[in-house]
Amino acid sequence: MRAVDLIRTKRDGGELDRAALDWFVAGVTDGSVPDYQASALLMAIVLVGMTAEETVALTDAMVRSGVRVSYPGLAHQAVDKHSTGGVGDKTSLILAPLAAACGAPVPMMSGRGLGHTGGTLDKLESIPGFRTGLLLDELTRAVQTVGCALIGQTSDVAPADRKLYALRDVTATVESIPLITASIMSKKIAEGIGGLVLDVKCGDGAFMKTQDDARVLALSLVATGEMAGVKTQALITAMEAPLGRGIGNALEVVESIETLKGRGPADLESLSVELAARMLVLAGVESDFTRAAAAVRGALASGAGVEKFRQIIANQGGDPSVIDDYSRLPSTPDRDVVAADRDGFVTVMKAEAVGRAAVLLGAGRDRLDAAVDPAVGFTIAAPVGSEVRRGDPIVEIHHRAGRGLEAARRLIEKAIVIAEAPLQARPLVLERIGVAGEC
Amino acid sequence: MRAVDLIRTKRDGGELDRAALDWFVAGVTDGSVPDYQASALLMAIVLVGMTAEETVALTDAMVRSGVRVSYPGLAHQAVDKHSTGGVGDKTSLILAPLAAACGAPVPMMSGRGLGHTGGTLDKLESIPGFRTGLLLDELTRAVQTVGCALIGQTSDVAPADRKLYALRDVTATVESIPLITASIMSKKIAEGIGGLVLDVKCGDGAFMKTQDDARVLALSLVATGEMAGVKTQALITAMEAPLGRGIGNALEVVESIETLKGRGPADLESLSVELAARMLVLAGVESDFTRAAAAVRGALASGAGVEKFRQIIANQGGDPSVIDDYSRLPSTPDRDVVAADRDGFVTVMKAEAVGRAAVLLGAGRDRLDAAVDPAVGFTIAAPVGSEVRRGDPIVEIHHRAGRGLEAARRLIEKAIVIAEAPLQARPLVLERIGVAGEC
Repeated sequence: MRAVDLIRTKRDGGELDRAALDWFVAGVTDGSVPDYQASALLMAIVLVGMTAEETVALTDAMVRSGVRVSYPGLAHQAVDKHSTGGVGDKTSLILAPLAAACGAPVPMMSGRGLGHTGGTLDKLESIPGFRTGLLLDELTRAVQTVGCALIGQTSDVAPADRKLYALRDVTATVESIPLITASIMSKKIAEGIGGLVLDVKCGDGAFMKTQDDARVLALSLVATGEMAGVKTQALITAMEAPLGRGIGNALEVVESIETLKGRGPADLESLSVELAARMLVLAGVESDFTRAAAAVRGALASGAGVEKFRQIIANQGGDPSVIDDYSRLPSTPDRDVVAADRDGFVTVMKAEAVGRAAVLLGAGRDRLDAAVDPAVGFTIAAPVGSEVRRGDPIVEIHHRAGRGLEAARRLIEKAIVIAEAPLQARPLVLERIGVAGEC
Repeated sequence: MRAVDLIRTKRDGGELDRAALDWFVAGVTDGSVPDYQASALLMAIVLVGMTAEETVALTDAMVRSGVRVSYPGLAHQAVDKHSTGGVGDKTSLILAPLAAACGAPVPMMSGRGLGHTGGTLDKLESIPGFRTGLLLDELTRAVQTVGCALIGQTSDVAPADRKLYALRDVTATVESIPLITASIMSKKIAEGIGGLVLDVKCGDGAFMKTQDDARVLALSLVATGEMAGVKTQALITAMEAPLGRGIGNALEVVESIETLKGRGPADLESLSVELAARMLVLAGVESDFTRAAAAVRGALASGAGVEKFRQIIANQGGDPSVIDDYSRLPSTPDRDVVAADRDGFVTVMKAEAVGRAAVLLGAGRDRLDAAVDPAVGFTIAAPVGSEVRRGDPIVEIHHRAGRGLEAARRLIEKAIVIAEAPLQARPLVLERIGVAGEC
């Protein structure tokens, strides 16, 4: 097989078969297909597209570029959740303990924040001592004993994705539904899960700006998961304003623990419960969504969820006393406030601008190798829908000695609209996509 | 400037400005733009296209990646001809001496044969001692004294093209009108010419299979030349059957000399005269085509053309006595014949198959670094249009001890059609493209 022939086939609108995609992915992984041929093929895929069969075959080849984890002796299928990324989205920290507390095995591999979107790993690492870099046998043991592990992607899992993503990032070949699908799903399938719930964000703060675009991605992800033998469901959820009240790594850990204690904001709690309940059904722990949702709510009310989070933290070397004492988490004494400049209702708080402002404070990064400050970020005092009087605080800024403060404040001020009348509330979950009867 | 932004712009259908293309070409030339970004941009160009302005800017940037030759003290503009490649196309060896004999300075840089198409350098190098690797000052001096040099592309001229072409070859990004245009025209413009005649072949043995495709390429080449200040004309010529009677390097040199002596086949002579005459007009030697054609025919009749070829050979270290004694050229004693299997008229002799058969004998190559055998090839005894009787020779095969003979013979036999009635002869020159009043 020759790379140039594969490139020509795709360039001319043809379909690449399983053998060709296997050969290409193996060659990318072992370096025998040079980067300049890989990037030409990636650009041809971006511009020409791929069929569902090609996407599945590419995903499968990427899974087989590394190990596929397994969890011997579990009573239920391992399940996971993946979000396409948003601002203030800390549902992973809530739903993983809840689902595990209800009996679903949750081997969750997450990523770091990039650009205006946050990352679960950065949030977890604000917990003193928490290790996200587990080895594969530590992951397996954690799932078998604690029922859940929250870790980063290991180099054993889908190594082809790591190489391809680095190349896509510098060759403007990220924006492609088949390539995004293969990247997300290869890592998830290699985790060894039997079920996956996807949270495909759409709107101002999301990668997909429109519901139509989000639906196309969700359908591709669900189809690829199902064809690979993983039961897959997707929610399309609105990401116009930040999710919950806290933005910034330690601030989001606090809000997650508060939510697990039953004191979280309604939007965050309801989305976390729905996602966790769907995981229970896919794991085979519960037979239908209604029973599953009741079980998750039970774990919330009983404190079983927050206790499971304590266990997870302890198992991964973190300080479990943060659950009871938030002062053990990183914080900063420097505060500022964005206040309402008139009486009215908060109708808009643009998520992307808030996320960008968080990067300016140091809570996020624009390059994957940059460090983040776990303490900085925002607390939203008056979320969208709130009635405010002139001078009321809307957003509290947690900054580090003024770093990025003025630029962040300007962004936040521009992100907020106060109107005379409230807008009608839109639902958070816009659409549910999955195989009929399962979703 | 960042390569990833240029790639994204082109991927999304945008236009790259002159500064961006300059930066990209300079980066490719000095290695600061890595191959994997260059190939991604090339694929985006192949699939998205380029405007005429972008093509001119790309060509210009490629010219400026190296030196632009000049010829101080000439009475007329230097001129050249470029063919997109065919089978049996030895017009360069005929028209360059003819145009130079009539007073046009001809600095002609040619390439090697690849695949089924032959190359002028390979033909010239079958002349014992002939040096095609002149240095730039030798080129300038040759044009100033002899009036013509027939050489290969030097590394000083359009080095960006050399790098880009090598990359295009292995990334399936050759087939693109803007990229082909920039590759051809950058080398020609860098030669320092004021006028260029293009022979854009179309048909079975050509890169462009249809006249429509050939016209698109011709228009792009002419527009780019004119916008770069080089007077440019294009002929679209048929390449269904081989041009002339000889195919193979030394065999084509013999046929070229015979043509310069006034004993060439009609198709080859008429095309060579028309191309040379257009060169005379573009050089400013003659004021119109009719006068120019008469001058060229005069040089043919007087022997001035063949004497100029003798001078060129001597000036470049070759053995000028080959002009009078063809036995000084490489030859092989091994012959075979493809004969008519019925009475009738030769109506088809597929050029590509004949060219492929020549490669099998060793006359051509499929990889640019392979050697060729200068002696082998074919002599066409009965070209298209000939009436033959069963058993009459149609093609004489000059082989080397049977190398590739049987496979070549099979290809030739399948390439020939003998019908009961002759087809109506099609003209060789199908179209003439150029600026109104010049063409």
